[in-house]
Parts: sequence; structure tokens; C-alpha cells
Amino acid sequence: MTITAPHGFRAAGVAAGIKASGALDLALVVNDGPDHHAAGVFTRNRIQAAPVLWSRQVLTTGRLRAVVLNSGGANACTGPQGFQTTHATAERVAARLGCGAGEVAVCSTGLIGSQLPRDAVLAGVDAAHAALSDVGRAATDAATAILTTDTRPKQAEYRGEGGWRIGGFAKGAGMIAPAMATMLAVLTTDAVVDPGELDKALRAATSRTFDRLDIDGCTSTNDTVLVLANGASVVSVSTDELTEGLTSICGDLVELLQADAEGATKQVVIAVRGALTEGEAVTVARSVARDNLVKTALFGSDANWGRVAMAVGNADAIIDAQRLDIRMNGVTVCQDGAAYGDRKTADLTGRDILVEIDLHVGDASAEVRTTDLSYAYVEENSAYSS
Amino acid sequence: MTITAPHGFRAAGVAAGIKASGALDLALVVNDGPDHHAAGVFTRNRIQAAPVLWSRQVLTTGRLRAVVLNSGGANACTGPQGFQTTHATAERVAARLGCGAGEVAVCSTGLIGSQLPRDAVLAGVDAAHAALSDVGRAATDAATAILTTDTRPKQAEYRGEGGWRIGGFAKGAGMIAPAMATMLAVLTTDAVVDPGELDKALRAATSRTFDRLDIDGCTSTNDTVLVLANGASVVSVSTDELTEGLTSICGDLVELLQADAEGATKQVVIAVRGALTEGEAVTVARSVARDNLVKTALFGSDANWGRVAMAVGNADAIIDAQRLDIRMNGVTVCQDGAAYGDRKTADLTGRDILVEIDLHVGDASAEVRTTDLSYAYVEENSAYSS
Repeated sequence: MTITAPHGFRAAGVAAGIKASGALDLALVVNDGPDHHAAGVFTRNRIQAAPVLWSRQVLTTGRLRAVVLNSGGANACTGPQGFQTTHATAERVAARLGCGAGEVAVCSTGLIGSQLPRDAVLAGVDAAHAALSDVGRAATDAATAILTTDTRPKQAEYRGEGGWRIGGFAKGAGMIAPAMATMLAVLTTDAVVDPGELDKALRAATSRTFDRLDIDGCTSTNDTVLVLANGASVVSVSTDELTEGLTSICGDLVELLQADAEGATKQVVIAVRGALTEGEAVTVARSVARDNLVKTALFGSDANWGRVAMAVGNADAIIDAQRLDIRMNGVTVCQDGAAYGDRKTADLTGRDILVEIDLHVGDASAEVRTTDLSYAYVEENSAYSS
Repeated sequence: MTITAPHGFRAAGVAAGIKASGALDLALVVNDGPDHHAAGVFTRNRIQAAPVLWSRQVLTTGRLRAVVLNSGGANACTGPQGFQTTHATAERVAARLGCGAGEVAVCSTGLIGSQLPRDAVLAGVDAAHAALSDVGRAATDAATAILTTDTRPKQAEYRGEGGWRIGGFAKGAGMIAPAMATMLAVLTTDAVVDPGELDKALRAATSRTFDRLDIDGCTSTNDTVLVLANGASVVSVSTDELTEGLTSICGDLVELLQADAEGATKQVVIAVRGALTEGEAVTVARSVARDNLVKTALFGSDANWGRVAMAVGNADAIIDAQRLDIRMNGVTVCQDGAAYGDRKTADLTGRDILVEIDLHVGDASAEVRTTDLSYAYVEENSAYSS
């Protein structure tokens, strides 16, 4: 279940001293080939961190030898000095691996607006390089070194027909919203892939997984999902197989992110059907997922479907107020746009809540995952500053 | 400071038994003429309560004799039966006043999805009609009868040159967002106005006042702002004078709403300048005002400008990440898109917080008012069901 499960990848996680706590804070993932295909998707926030600007640029070649990631600082809103730190980090990794800096992606996460301690980061790169290994422990160290408010590392694996695999890790507990991935995720595969198809498959996979997790409507400055493919399994896969595998592993990582979301007491799925288009189904589901009055009601285990209806009506989509049906954990509480039965029979006291919305205007459907809005979310985010 | 301050208006507020608590819950405002000009703006939510559907329709004539308002139930998502209750309510008011039902607007507020007790509402109309008066006490009863989670009535007055006045009341503490007014507000004026200009002046006033208060991003199914003009002062006013007066009184009501917002511990103004257009300035300010991570940081009196920058970057507007400046309560914490000085010198411990954002890409500016996201907001909204 690690990023080194596919053949030909090594990883390491070290304590570089970026975090004052002395916790693991720098990770390195290396692709030993034979191929070095890569693709990435990045945040759509208009303010992008230095490592995002760098990694977008190097990804234009479709090749990566390695990814270096740090927690303890987002390196966002840090000006030219911050960009130089990212560049120097990639240069140091490249020097250790004997490749070009343009083959090294950089990811950072943590507080926005602080400079990273450059010397500590560069020394950390050396230590991580020395610790590189394909054993699970090294991969788990890497998955641990990227965490911020997350309470546990998030790793997943996918096994394809014929022996090829995908491994991956992700981090993210807050500032999670749809305009792409949720903070950071790295995926590796030893499948033999067509480089042009890799990008297509990654975009197809993230658009239906990471893009449909919305914890708090806040799209970070640093969101990045990268995939590295080396062909070491000597198994060729079609675009469909690759898309299926990537969608599966991304879906697993999204569930881990949802389960560990800041202050969450509920894991909520908003399932919309009967929409005119899949895009409108997502828009409606997202409007409900983001609505603070819906989220506080769910925190209180209250089947307050009127707030769901209000949020549906706020979405920019075709709806018919007279044909709206809402079910909560299997109980119909609203039919034809009006109250149905006794909403108190919908039991929302457990951790999992399913809100089903049928718009009855078309055939398209989509799901968005979210959490509730709890005292703990407010506490964690009013104190968080590291 | 009441809705009967202008000449020729009477009001009443009674306990009709809609609220189980026995509190005042039905209000009536009557325009005794000589003119009966009126205009209104309504929620942009695609799911609109029965009274909104009714009042939009009757307002197409530009004439109103009276407005009847109730708390204790929104009469939204209530199907044909709910609409019949609204219609019957208007009919009863019309019968008492000797006018047509098409001259009576209806407003409702409270829980979405429950039927109103029609008989109690109709008996309440009779009681309110019997209690109609132009004294301040009756107007305050009316302003009190429309409250839900509000802690106090919200009334304001504007005095124009030459002796004309505007009076008004409003209610709203949650489910407050920009797509127009904030729940319910009624304004009265004894100015002599051009009926066509009344609508124009009201839209100009609400677009810069009610539309720029965003407590929780939730646009209600019932939002309504109405203005009634009777010319009883015999003072003719220009469109500019009328717009100025309406903007002034709406601004006062917005400040009262903001001060009484559910669970708020901070009154926050997000002021954006240097935007390309006023619309983009509003878009940026609203993105910051709605951001839960910004709101929780402000609850903790934390000058976490990185979250402000993140929210700016999420707005659909032209920005330049290298030229962004942010000031919090007068202290520059971000300049040219990077940290400036020591953010701890920005004192946010008081109730009022001013966040100034300069985009440096144009000359347009706008302000949006909001509040913080506190434990109390979560508590009030996870329990609220009445």
C-alpha cells in the first residue's frame, strides 16, 4: 500500500528541521526508470505558490526523474526569494541524482507567507537522498513527511491485470476544495504507458475524484497531483485501463482525506441525479456540500432538508422547485418540492450521511464528498498557524 | 426611528399563535395614501417561497396598499397548499381594508418546509387590522413580530430636505448572502415620487447595501425588500435624492443586521480597491468574506493574511499575485504579494475588523460586510429548527 509498491521507485522521508517540532518534514520520491513519463494537475487558485509555478513549468516536458516535497511551509506569497528556494531545492536533488533540475518537481505545504529555511531544506535533500529505499518503511516515512494538520499518513495501491501497479500517497485536511486536487498527492506506476495518454488519464481520474471532495470550499495555493510512470513492469496498458486504475487509487486517497478532515464528525456524500448535465449535477452537489447551514445541521444530526432545498436553489443549474425530491440516509423527507413523511425518522446520528437529491429534469448524476461543520473545525482553524 | 415615521402609514404587530412560544409573529403595514406606489426586490434563489411568488406577481402593477408579514414559518417548499395560504392571507387583508388582494404583498420567514396554520394567520390578520396605529409602539410591535433568531428589532429612519422621511424595519440573522436582500425589509416614505423611479432607486440602494452583506453565503428562499410611497408629505423628490435616502436607510439597516448576526463575535468589513471594475472588487471582497478559513482566523483574532491571499486568488477576477497588498486594522501585513513586517502588530482583538486589499490593477473599489465564524454560529445553527 505504498508509493514504492510499483517496481523501480524509491522514496525517503526525513526530518530536515523545517518544522520546529522536529517531525519528519521532507520527502523524496525517485523514478529509477527505464521510462520517466510524468503528468500533473495543479491548483486553479490565481495565487500560486513558488513550487507550483516551478513544477508546472518542468512538467511541460512530460518527464520527471524525481519529486521533492516538504511540509512546514507552503512557500506561497514569498516573492523572488521563495522562488529561488524552490529552484535551489530542485538543483540540489538534480545534483545528487545526476540529472537536470528541469526533471525535478517540487511541492510544499504549510503556512502561507513564510520563507522556508533554505539551508535546512538543502541539507534535508542530501539526507533524504542518502535514505532512499524501495522498502515500505521508507515510503511511509515519505508519506508522513508531507503531513500538516493530518493525523495520519494516507497511502493506497492499485493492482492492474498482468502485474502492473499504481502506488500513491496524499495529504490534506483543510483548505480543500474543488478547483483540483486536495493539497498534495504523488502517484507512481510501473505500467508501460503512452506519455500523451498519461496526462489525459490523470485529468480524467482527478476530475472525478479529487475535484469532487469539498471540505471547506477553500482552494489552496499549493494543490498538486503528480503521476510518474516508468514501464518497469513491462506491462503495456491502454488508456482505459490506466484511467480506471488512476481513478480507483485517487478515489481511495480521497476517502482517506475525507476521513481525516479537520474537525469532521460526519462523512457526507451528496448524490445528485436527474440533472440536465453531469456538470450541473456537480454544481448542485457542490452548492449543498459547501453550505454552512447544511453542514451545521448535519453536525447536529438534524435532517433539515429545507436547508438542502435552499442550497439546491442557490446553484447555477436548471431545477424545478415543484419536482425536487430529497432523501436522507434512505428516508424520503421531501417529495415534489414539499415535506414528505416525518423527517425525524431519518437517522443521521451515525458518522456516515448520504443526502440524495433527485432534480427530475434530466438523466445526469454526480456525487460530491464533504464533511460537517463542527466546533472542532472552528477550534482547529482559529488556532492553526503552523 | 420607525416605519410609521413618514406620514400616512399605520402598522401593527400581534401574536397570532404561529409561534408556539406565543411571541409576536404577525405584522401588518398599511399605506393610507394618497399615492400607493411600491417597488420590491426579491431573492435570486431558484427555489422561492409562496409569499415571494405572490408578492413578485402583485408588484408588477407598481401598487401596494399593504404588506402582511409573519415569522414562525417561511411557507417555502410547501406546494399548492402553501400558496393557497398566502393567497388567503392577502384576501383577508384586502377584505379588511376594502381593496383588492392584488394590492397586498405577503412576506414569511422561519423554518422551510412546514405549512403555516392558516386559520391562526387569518385570525391574526383581523387582530392586526384592529390594532393598526401610527404610533411608534405599534411600529415597533410590527418590527418585533417578524423576528426569528434575531435578538432585537431593527428599525431606522431617514429625514430628507424639506420634511419628507423614510422609515423602515428589517429582520435577518442567518441565511444571509448577496443575491439580494437579507430576509425581510419594509421601507415607507411620504415623499412624492415618480413611480417608475421608485423601482430604480430601490434597486440602486439595495445593490450597494443589502447585496453587500454576506454572513454565511446562504441565500434564503424568502428574501424580500419592499418600499411603499404615498406622497403624504407633499414634498417632491428627485431620483437622486430618493436613491440617496434609500441607500442611507438601507445601509443603517444592514449595520443592524450585521451587528445581530448569528453567533458573530466580530463585525468585519472587507474593503477592496485597485480592482479592474466595481463588479470584480465585489467578487474579490465576497470571496474573502465567505471563506471559512478567513472567518475562523478572524474569530481567533489572528492576522492570518495568507488565508486572505488564498481567498483573493480564488475569486474570478483579474489579480496580479506580485502586486497584492493587504492591511488588517491599519497594519500592512502583505506587500507586493509577500509578508511585510510583523503580522502580530495587527491588533484584531476588538469587535471591529477592517481588512483592506489593494489589487493594484485598476481604479475600482467596493466593500462587503461580514462576520466571523464562531463556536456560537455552529451551536446556533446545529440546534435551530424553528
